[in-house]
Amino acid sequence: MTTEIDFEPWKLLGELAETGAVERLREEAERLGPRECARAISRLSRELQAKVLTALEPAAAADLMEEISEAQATGLITRLDTGTAAPILDAMASNTTADLLAQLPQHQVQALLREMQPEAAEDARLLVQYAPEEAGGLMIREYLAYPVSYTTQQVIDDMRRNSEKYSEYSIQYSFVVSPEGKLVGVLPLRDLLLTPSNVAIERIMIRNPMRVSDRATLEDLDAFFQERSFLGVPVVDDRDRLVGVVRRTDVDEALGKRANKDYLKSQGIVGGEELRSMPTLVRSGRRLSWLSVNILLNVMAASVIAFYQDTLSSVIALAVFLPIISDMSGCSGNQAVAVSMRELALGLVKPFEVIHVWIKEAAVGMLNGLALGLLIAMVAWLWKGNPFLGLVVGAALMLNTVVAVSIGGTLPLFLKRMKFDPALASGPILTTVTDMCGFFFVLSLATVLLPYIQA
Amino acid sequence: MTTEIDFEPWKLLGELAETGAVERLREEAERLGPRECARAISRLSRELQAKVLTALEPAAAADLMEEISEAQATGLITRLDTGTAAPILDAMASNTTADLLAQLPQHQVQALLREMQPEAAEDARLLVQYAPEEAGGLMIREYLAYPVSYTTQQVIDDMRRNSEKYSEYSIQYSFVVSPEGKLVGVLPLRDLLLTPSNVAIERIMIRNPMRVSDRATLEDLDAFFQERSFLGVPVVDDRDRLVGVVRRTDVDEALGKRANKDYLKSQGIVGGEELRSMPTLVRSGRRLSWLSVNILLNVMAASVIAFYQDTLSSVIALAVFLPIISDMSGCSGNQAVAVSMRELALGLVKPFEVIHVWIKEAAVGMLNGLALGLLIAMVAWLWKGNPFLGLVVGAALMLNTVVAVSIGGTLPLFLKRMKFDPALASGPILTTVTDMCGFFFVLSLATVLLPYIQA
Repeated sequence: MTTEIDFEPWKLLGELAETGAVERLREEAERLGPRECARAISRLSRELQAKVLTALEPAAAADLMEEISEAQATGLITRLDTGTAAPILDAMASNTTADLLAQLPQHQVQALLREMQPEAAEDARLLVQYAPEEAGGLMIREYLAYPVSYTTQQVIDDMRRNSEKYSEYSIQYSFVVSPEGKLVGVLPLRDLLLTPSNVAIERIMIRNPMRVSDRATLEDLDAFFQERSFLGVPVVDDRDRLVGVVRRTDVDEALGKRANKDYLKSQGIVGGEELRSMPTLVRSGRRLSWLSVNILLNVMAASVIAFYQDTLSSVIALAVFLPIISDMSGCSGNQAVAVSMRELALGLVKPFEVIHVWIKEAAVGMLNGLALGLLIAMVAWLWKGNPFLGLVVGAALMLNTVVAVSIGGTLPLFLKRMKFDPALASGPILTTVTDMCGFFFVLSLATVLLPYIQA
Repeated sequence: MTTEIDFEPWKLLGELAETGAVERLREEAERLGPRECARAISRLSRELQAKVLTALEPAAAADLMEEISEAQATGLITRLDTGTAAPILDAMASNTTADLLAQLPQHQVQALLREMQPEAAEDARLLVQYAPEEAGGLMIREYLAYPVSYTTQQVIDDMRRNSEKYSEYSIQYSFVVSPEGKLVGVLPLRDLLLTPSNVAIERIMIRNPMRVSDRATLEDLDAFFQERSFLGVPVVDDRDRLVGVVRRTDVDEALGKRANKDYLKSQGIVGGEELRSMPTLVRSGRRLSWLSVNILLNVMAASVIAFYQDTLSSVIALAVFLPIISDMSGCSGNQAVAVSMRELALGLVKPFEVIHVWIKEAAVGMLNGLALGLLIAMVAWLWKGNPFLGLVVGAALMLNTVVAVSIGGTLPLFLKRMKFDPALASGPILTTVTDMCGFFFVLSLATVLLPYIQA
């Protein structure tokens, strides 16, 4: 194994943290930048990670926290004492702070909120009341809002006065609110710029701007931004009071996170993201929770074979084809699952359109079943010189390909309708059913044609 | 099957297109909005889709084109005559137009460019020279740039004059260029607003702004935006001339597209996205191209079984466990693949760190192999009352679990290093190797212990 230069930063950070060389550690972290630094510390033990975070300035530590995965960030915060953790949370974006707090036990949340700056704590308290994927959970609290009684000059004066505080805000738009806090208008920065004289903002604001409810789902928000080129949208509560802004980037990020979770779940990584820096027992346990369900389903499916032991011992060659039929049907079925998952995500198909999907899949299944069935039949025939053996395995694979794509295509729709998670459940159900059917087709056909296929 | 109201729009649009009711079609399309409309027309035949597009105003047709998938959009443009297609392309965002043109045959591209408005055609000509995932291919040409000799008043006057044209631009920043077109500064709209008097923009611009090369990769851009909270970044060519702007949203979108393609490829959907509205033969052919490779690999793997026919016919019960070992090893291996794919995407692991990954996987593999091996050994023992049969299948599954996670964890790293596509190749290679090993373990152990396991 070659040691390359990229491999070094985490070792260096680890040593600096261990020896308490705070100054050099800060310099090194700054040189790396938050992203590289996050990668580097993900290799360190939890204790050393905590030491690195404690050594950094709160603002630098906050940048770092925003780069590492949620699972890691949560683990880390619990290892810091409240006095160290609170200023870091203060410096993070309000929605990221809230996401993190949502993962912690209640007593720890309360202790942290007490230590945090009042304004940041209040924002966090508001945001944690929402689910992480609804508008209230995705929104940020860093936005500009002005009373409807203001003039353009008052707005510009406020911006000048607070330019430092606002420097991290996205101020392409300012919002205009009534005395009760209701959203009454939006003030594009551009219009503020292009209005030559000092006028009441009420005169130039866009009235009744688009808004979303704080309870809007991620799908609602995705649809909203897909149809409009806005970079953000104001969020209002049930009394139409402005409570935050959801940015397009936060929605995109949440969608990306969900897609990744779906991918991991479909491959049997359940219970949250797995990183190899986690303890072996945790990783093993989580993976086993999924594997143990699968092995039971597998035993169930394979028990079909046990029923046909007599046929199998008469024509032992069939044993070679059973795993092939099982694997190939799984492959065909998974293709159909993937297309359905994608069409569901794009909204091209609705969960109740089972018949439409089934017709489309059955057509492909028949063609591909025919092709694959002929291929495997040829292999069997050539190998054993028995055309009937070819007929048995070819027909079985053909039939089972149709079964596999029919189930694979429609199962995600059914699961979605019944509020199950299709990413999680499609694979195991598909495999079990197609295995059972596949074994049944091969062995029952073989039983019927037994006189012709015995060598 | 129930007919629900959601199901109707595509039928209505189809009928309106067929009967040539242009006015009602336009109204209906406007009522639906581009996204719903895109979903609806994806159900229509290609001919009817072309009719709908022809009937709409170019701007509305452009909005629609931006909503439908690239594969569909390309198919559609080829069906429109050049005179209808060109104004639609004019009205689309420059990078979307370029993406679309990149999919078409050269003669058609030239014909379309001749019909398009000169400015839009020039933008498209520039953009199609780039790969779709590099900065030049992702950038938009709709940005504001002013000569360094301008004053703030001149900029504001230009903005006022062209406010309609710029209304679709994101003008949070304007760029400042030298007489040779080199990027020399950036002018935040905010600073323009907060500067009270008329001054040379050179005095208030931010000098030497961040920029990316037109050849920057998607990974470079992702890293850039991850580390900074910018909404966009200027793109320069090899002579440092400003050529475009890459927006954060376009990078996020490209990353999302790639993640989706990776998911589809890992499930055996190759050659581009599949929609069920595509012709059955195309869908069948593409899926078969993947399945036919797989069936050959499967036959290869299963041929291991053929070598042990004697053992198998002595202990026919083994045939029941072969598919279980194959499936379970596949499951364990896929979990490891998923974790590696994720860690590679996050940059948490580099392609050369094979040993590090292998050690982490082997530990989990041994624990999970032990658990699964014990489980299946118990099943075998209880079923046949023979502890040695349990020993054979349990030991085989245990060993093969370690093999599977070792291969699954490290294979994506190897493939990445050798510039193969891990999303595409990991699955089939993993399955083939673990099947071969699994069958070998079961059957060779059984051959050795044959005297003890024969019923």
